[in-house]
Amino acid sequence: MYSLKQIGVIHTTFKTKEATPIQGAFNPDAEGTVEVFPEYADGLKDIETFSHIWLFYLFDRAGDLPLVLPVFLDDEPHGVFATRHPSRPNGIGMTAVRLIRISGRVLDVSGIDVLDGTPLIDIKPYVSRFDSIDDASDGWLEGKGERKKPPGRE
Amino acid sequence: MYSLKQIGVIHTTFKTKEATPIQGAFNPDAEGTVEVFPEYADGLKDIETFSHIWLFYLFDRAGDLPLVLPVFLDDEPHGVFATRHPSRPNGIGMTAVRLIRISGRVLDVSGIDVLDGTPLIDIKPYVSRFDSIDDASDGWLEGKGERKKPPGRE
Repeated sequence: MYSLKQIGVIHTTFKTKEATPIQGAFNPDAEGTVEVFPEYADGLKDIETFSHIWLFYLFDRAGDLPLVLPVFLDDEPHGVFATRHPSRPNGIGMTAVRLIRISGRVLDVSGIDVLDGTPLIDIKPYVSRFDSIDDASDGWLEGKGERKKPPGRE
Repeated sequence: MYSLKQIGVIHTTFKTKEATPIQGAFNPDAEGTVEVFPEYADGLKDIETFSHIWLFYLFDRAGDLPLVLPVFLDDEPHGVFATRHPSRPNGIGMTAVRLIRISGRVLDVSGIDVLDGTPLIDIKPYVSRFDSIDDASDGWLEGKGERKKPPGRE
């Protein structure tokens, strides 16, 4: 019903799902580059004024899982909309990353958690006034720390 | 290249673009309801454990504007990827809202900033550890307060 256009590609050192961090926040030093295709480069004007940006991308290598699914950070299954899992009805992911520098249409970022070659579909500025909610609960994630990804959970 | 499925609909009191808040954070008391279609309802399991959620939706009534465009909060044009403006190459919006209550497949939320009838495409939990960045700069938005939407800016 609505078709997305790829506007760029994200390059990282993560070549396999197993090697990819569960969340960028767990791996703040992981650097990557975001290449915006030439026809969209004008849209980057003034992005260097922001310290952090949201990357929106496609989970292009996520497998199919049911709507209630096993996740990486817990052994109990959860509804997909209560998780950040890649296998979801619309496979859109987002991560807030630090913008280190911009050279033309290439952005160097840190805190990245996606597979190398992931298709980019949007960039938005991170704005604390809109996006930072200190007192949000952690829900079922409360107390769940990073761990090795259990196998078979995509 | 990638087709999105509508998974629900967002109901608000905002019937026109002019009446719709520029950002949910500017209007934290604005309530709305999120109706998830029956075939996706199972995916809501455990979402009630979160105080805040991200809504992802389509800017289905946004007009076409160039990649460097006039915005609501400033009189200088900015690159679309340095703005949260609805008129963008892929018309995906997102807002963090407070989850007030859930009844079956209907979620009552506050801090909503979208037009009534907006197509829902995803819900993710808001997780402070991943999403809250206190020290993010405000970029060109620094010091720009809410104001009446200037006409002709979609």
